[in-house]
Amino acid sequence: MDEHEQRFLDLAVEQARTGWDEGGVPIGAALVHDGEVLAVGRNRRVQLGSAIRHGETDCLENAGRQPARVYRESVLYTTLSPCYMCAGTVVLYGIPRVVVGENRSFQASEDWLRSHGVKIDVVDDAECRRLMERMMAERPEVWAEDIGEES
Amino acid sequence: MDEHEQRFLDLAVEQARTGWDEGGVPIGAALVHDGEVLAVGRNRRVQLGSAIRHGETDCLENAGRQPARVYRESVLYTTLSPCYMCAGTVVLYGIPRVVVGENRSFQASEDWLRSHGVKIDVVDDAECRRLMERMMAERPEVWAEDIGEES
Repeated sequence: MDEHEQRFLDLAVEQARTGWDEGGVPIGAALVHDGEVLAVGRNRRVQLGSAIRHGETDCLENAGRQPARVYRESVLYTTLSPCYMCAGTVVLYGIPRVVVGENRSFQASEDWLRSHGVKIDVVDDAECRRLMERMMAERPEVWAEDIGEES
Repeated sequence: MDEHEQRFLDLAVEQARTGWDEGGVPIGAALVHDGEVLAVGRNRRVQLGSAIRHGETDCLENAGRQPARVYRESVLYTTLSPCYMCAGTVVLYGIPRVVVGENRSFQASEDWLRSHGVKIDVVDDAECRRLMERMMAERPEVWAEDIGEES
């Protein structure tokens, strides 16, 4: 990953950190088209009482309505490996590549995404891991809720 | 499908009709837990400028934060066969059954949902079909955008 890519991931990490500071789930994302940041977003389950605003979906929502072409030329940066809702959103819109901050804390959809032709690059970023380790240690019930598991 | 089930599907159809009248995509949904309607929702791409408010996701958002147990005992009624975003949301939350108004206008995820243990019942409802036929004839660009296709 070159320094431009690291900068895009850093935007996602910054969102994750903001989400943590707001009392929420520290997962962030950035959607980049042709080197331009279309939007950033973060998990806002707690902040908005939302069941569908994960980092990736919040980011896509913030990007607004886009034509198919734009998604198909974009890269989605996310601090954590996508759940199936977010992976399904990637497949729906034909986003061809996802850069994943880390997948040690959670991993569900990577093989499935690859089977739909999505390129997955896992960075294994220490700060992404640290944020999720804190989440799982300090807010385990919210984390369970966020991934549809019994706490 | 018994008359109770038809009533739940009718709530989804009513949402779809409202969405059409608002100038949007006529797809609606209802989430039912233990015979009680938790929420209804409709595609609000046009109304809210949204990339993630499909019928099913809008419905789940309207239901608010729910514990895993509730989703796992619920049925999702939707007027149209789910796209992968909505299907991924069903898998994330472990919703065990989806009642689909029709799947002639669009079908992408049913086999995949079944492979995750989700029961799919397709009603082939004439009113659901009629609404989507009108959508595809009269607002084809918006429909293409909604499913991530070039128009």
